[in-house]
Amino acid sequence: MAFWGIEVKPGKPITHKYDDLKGRLHISMATLALGTATDKSVLQCNVGNKSPVYLCALYPVSAESVQLNLEFEEADDVIFSVLGPRSVFLTGYFLRGGEHDLYPLSF
Amino acid sequence: MAFWGIEVKPGKPITHKYDDLKGRLHISMATLALGTATDKSVLQCNVGNKSPVYLCALYPVSAESVQLNLEFEEADDVIFSVLGPRSVFLTGYFLRGGEHDLYPLSF
Amino acid sequence: MAFWGIEVKPGKPITHKYDDLKGRLHISMATLALGTATDKSVLQCNVGNKSPVYLCALYPVSAESVQLNLEFEEADDVIFSVLGPRSVFLTGYFLRGGEHDLYPLSF
Amino acid sequence: MAFWGIEVKPGKPITHKYDDLKGRLHISMATLALGTATDKSVLQCNVGNKSPVYLCALYPVSAESVQLNLEFEEADDVIFSVLGPRSVFLTGYFLRGGEHDLYPLSF
Amino acid sequence: MAFWGIEVKPGKPITHKYDDLKGRLHISMATLALGTATDKSVLQCNVGNKSPVYLCALYPVSAESVQLNLEFEEADDVIFSVLGPRSVFLTGYFLRGGEHDLYPLSF
Repeated sequence: MAFWGIEVKPGKPITHKYDDLKGRLHISMATLALGTATDKSVLQCNVGNKSPVYLCALYPVSAESVQLNLEFEEADDVIFSVLGPRSVFLTGYFLRGGEHDLYPLSF
Repeated sequence: MAFWGIEVKPGKPITHKYDDLKGRLHISMATLALGTATDKSVLQCNVGNKSPVYLCALYPVSAESVQLNLEFEEADDVIFSVLGPRSVFLTGYFLRGGEHDLYPLSF
Repeated sequence: MAFWGIEVKPGKPITHKYDDLKGRLHISMATLALGTATDKSVLQCNVGNKSPVYLCALYPVSAESVQLNLEFEEADDVIFSVLGPRSVFLTGYFLRGGEHDLYPLSF
Repeated sequence: MAFWGIEVKPGKPITHKYDDLKGRLHISMATLALGTATDKSVLQCNVGNKSPVYLCALYPVSAESVQLNLEFEEADDVIFSVLGPRSVFLTGYFLRGGEHDLYPLSF
Repeated sequence: MAFWGIEVKPGKPITHKYDDLKGRLHISMATLALGTATDKSVLQCNVGNKSPVYLCALYPVSAESVQLNLEFEEADDVIFSVLGPRSVFLTGYFLRGGEHDLYPLSF
């Protein structure tokens, strides 16, 4: 079960918690959901009590899909939120094996 | 045999099943097929009974090729479908070695 | 010798054969060659007797360089061809080490 | 704690120092902060006493998010600065494990 | 010392020679330098006596930063040159560890 995907809706932040069984999360893409609003939608990320940062800005038609290639393996909560009118789909995958079973060698 | 490529046609979802011999699939690109329709074509992905997510949005001329860089190694079926008028080519490759022969060391 | 680059000209498909000494090929980029034609040029790939797929679509000015990030390690011939008026440069590299010398450990 | 993100403000360069506990830094994205200025903002990088280089150029609306995929593990200070009117968010992550615990095998 | 960056000026090709201590070079990005010329600038690469290939095409405003993700570890000289009016910054990094210290295991 590698694939990961969520929809982040405006005004409804989503909290990602690290799961030791699933391991480090690689987020590959952000894509705008359907809608008629033409303003930009910014994807924001808050990790613990650090300052929030923008991960990307999405525009209808001209920039609906943006590559991210970010990785998360945080002890703190990671909160994704959308600033703007449209929902944003985030997709990615859990890295192969966790840190522990990456080298499943038996000597 | 690393390379993988399919054409997803509108109204004809394609189911990807995990194959233990081939291993984890990395999908690199989505590219619009030929056609005259000018509306956008969205690539959607359903995994098992999770909510469907959009992987990318493709537009004639302005965004015909989009990088995805997603990985799939799912016990559940993965269904790719196109919302819109044009077929979408998905291309990628199976990761080198399966989980089992990635470290073909013999001690 | 990691780097790899070819020019695929319209009407002159190029066949890539796997070479065990060089190993798996990662193709990173497609870039339009010089020319005055303004139509799009599509890069197509045929592997063995599978259906051909489009890898990307290139447009003068608006999309002259597109990332691919595909990998090839095929027993069958891989044939790259251009549908359209302009040549396409493909560039990439052979993955570090072949499958065999990736872990050149001697215990 | 993999994720890393900073805001580089115009006129306020930020110095990144290598931290052996955190390891090599992969910077994935640069994204424009909010603002009304329409000129471009260039992200510049100075490492030690080498000549400064531009990492990317960001434009409101047309190029607000750019992938970088750069890595830093420098003995010298790395100074990021913005040439232009708008702040730039840089996001990325520390590579899994440091050089030392990447292969936490115990034989 | 992972980071690598150079400026390739029009009419002044730059030769990259492989350095065993630094190892394989990953070039991540090409970005236009400042300037007023509005024509495109193409980044060309010559390796040994092979045919030259274009790595990417850069345009003021519309395509000032392009991802490359190429790797070089050549016995032959690699010559980067710019065809066009503007300088191009190339940035990237040396892969972690050389081939020799990538697996610094002591058994």
